[in-house]
Amino acid sequence: MNKNGIKALVFDAYGTLFDVHSVIEKCNELFDGKGVEISKTWREKQLEYANLHQIMGNYKSFYQITNHALHYAVKLHDEQLDKRAENELLKAYLQLSTFPEVKDVLTQLQDKKLAVFSNGSHDMLDPLIKQSKITDIFDQIISVDEIKQFKPAVASYKYAAKELKVKPEEVLFMSSNGWDISGAKNYGFHTAWINRQNLPIEEMDMEPTIIYHDLTGILEWK
Amino acid sequence: MNKNGIKALVFDAYGTLFDVHSVIEKCNELFDGKGVEISKTWREKQLEYANLHQIMGNYKSFYQITNHALHYAVKLHDEQLDKRAENELLKAYLQLSTFPEVKDVLTQLQDKKLAVFSNGSHDMLDPLIKQSKITDIFDQIISVDEIKQFKPAVASYKYAAKELKVKPEEVLFMSSNGWDISGAKNYGFHTAWINRQNLPIEEMDMEPTIIYHDLTGILEWK
Repeated sequence: MNKNGIKALVFDAYGTLFDVHSVIEKCNELFDGKGVEISKTWREKQLEYANLHQIMGNYKSFYQITNHALHYAVKLHDEQLDKRAENELLKAYLQLSTFPEVKDVLTQLQDKKLAVFSNGSHDMLDPLIKQSKITDIFDQIISVDEIKQFKPAVASYKYAAKELKVKPEEVLFMSSNGWDISGAKNYGFHTAWINRQNLPIEEMDMEPTIIYHDLTGILEWK
Repeated sequence: MNKNGIKALVFDAYGTLFDVHSVIEKCNELFDGKGVEISKTWREKQLEYANLHQIMGNYKSFYQITNHALHYAVKLHDEQLDKRAENELLKAYLQLSTFPEVKDVLTQLQDKKLAVFSNGSHDMLDPLIKQSKITDIFDQIISVDEIKQFKPAVASYKYAAKELKVKPEEVLFMSSNGWDISGAKNYGFHTAWINRQNLPIEEMDMEPTIIYHDLTGILEWK
């Protein structure tokens, strides 16, 4: 991979720029001490439902899916979700924290074309990016909702490349999600897996181009 | 749903007829005391990889996926998988136990058309069913490998109906897997969710026709 051949640095949002488990605190407050497990199930079900809707061909927006996954997670852990709790938790999802290094790293990379490319729909993605005060850093915020094809479908990455007006091999794509890295590689992006949790590489014959423990690693692409 | 309108009783295999966690013992033997967590990750990754390959459009057989998921699970739990352990565990997957009520229930339903319809490829499904001595009970063993489209894709259930020579609404489909019930319902089968673990209904707007705690419930369809 040649540094000069890369025209766009493209970032996944959830888990990569934003810490989805920063809702634990609110979950703990609402469901006494069950914040960790509810938050974990919520995220797992959110990903599973996105995959299943993609496979079944009955797309729903990531906002709807996030709401459905929340309902499932709360039930699984024997709690009740009233309307107030639902609203507070969905609101918390629009206020996730960025990981500590995010803003500094992005600021240093501003002479490249920078984009977010997410499964999130704009109704959740735009307010989230706005409240974190990093909107202006990005040239484009691309949501799969624009074509209703979730990552890791080939059609989704292809759409992102088209919107960015670059060839697949001109993209370096960053994600903390192994499945997203596999999907990006399957389409033809270069990939940097942000392996925040020190997990094994996914066994999908789709290895990342490079692995970093957090986003500071990509500063070598300046 | 009219009992007389049902022409075929169709069963998922893994988790429904066969207990995938019956490999725990072998896992415990090979990875001192980590049987429960390795077996759990193994199953979760197996399902995730099948979904991801389906979405990415790069099909691999369930046997290959099961092997890949095993490698991931063992690494995640900080263990090593040598060739001998790999062989023993994959062999254990061909010798899963049926749930206790399975044989008796199936025997009582033999005047209906009975079929297995599984994501498993024949190289793992056929020996598994054979060793459990229930092969002769079934009229058909249908694998998605024949068309390389994993459940819950519409194409997979459609293929099963075609092979069974019945209309979707003439099928009662049994699965313990919520995602499989959602997929079958999405295509148009009647569904009986075998909710062995007392889990919440999946939040996918695809509720099962009926819910039983184990397969004895379906005897009312005799």
